[in-house]
Amino acid sequence: MKVRVFVNLKPGVLDPQGRAVHHALEGLGFAGVEDVRIGRMIELDAADDTTDEALDTMCRQLLANTVIENYRIEKEPA
Amino acid sequence: MKVRVFVNLKPGVLDPQGRAVHHALEGLGFAGVEDVRIGRMIELDAADDTTDEALDTMCRQLLANTVIENYRIEKEPA
Repeated sequence: MKVRVFVNLKPGVLDPQGRAVHHALEGLGFAGVEDVRIGRMIELDAADDTTDEALDTMCRQLLANTVIENYRIEKEPA
Repeated sequence: MKVRVFVNLKPGVLDPQGRAVHHALEGLGFAGVEDVRIGRMIELDAADDTTDEALDTMCRQLLANTVIENYRIEKEPA
């Protein structure tokens, strides 16, 4: 099955990459953007018997830094 | 309004970051994962009158490299 993990910075954590993109958008003339935050989308092609617990453990151990990041797991059956 | 832009590598484009994560997952004992691809999720806080065309132009000019990446725009009204 296909699993998508979305990882984004917790509110309040400084996002220099997002700030740079925001600045670049303004430089290109897009004035209506107030804030930009950048996160990761990790697409896993996992075996159908992969448990939710295993996915959660993957996120906590490797995919996300839970000190500064939140993650959300979205499963899409094959 | 909140806009999410998902950027991922086109199929066939080598993803060294995804491969490294895949390898690390195997090292941690998660054997059921067959493939890992890593993309970006860009969250924009855009003015409500931002047009779809403007968002598309942002993606083409800055947020995605359309030579090797696909993007998908998801709008979420405030």
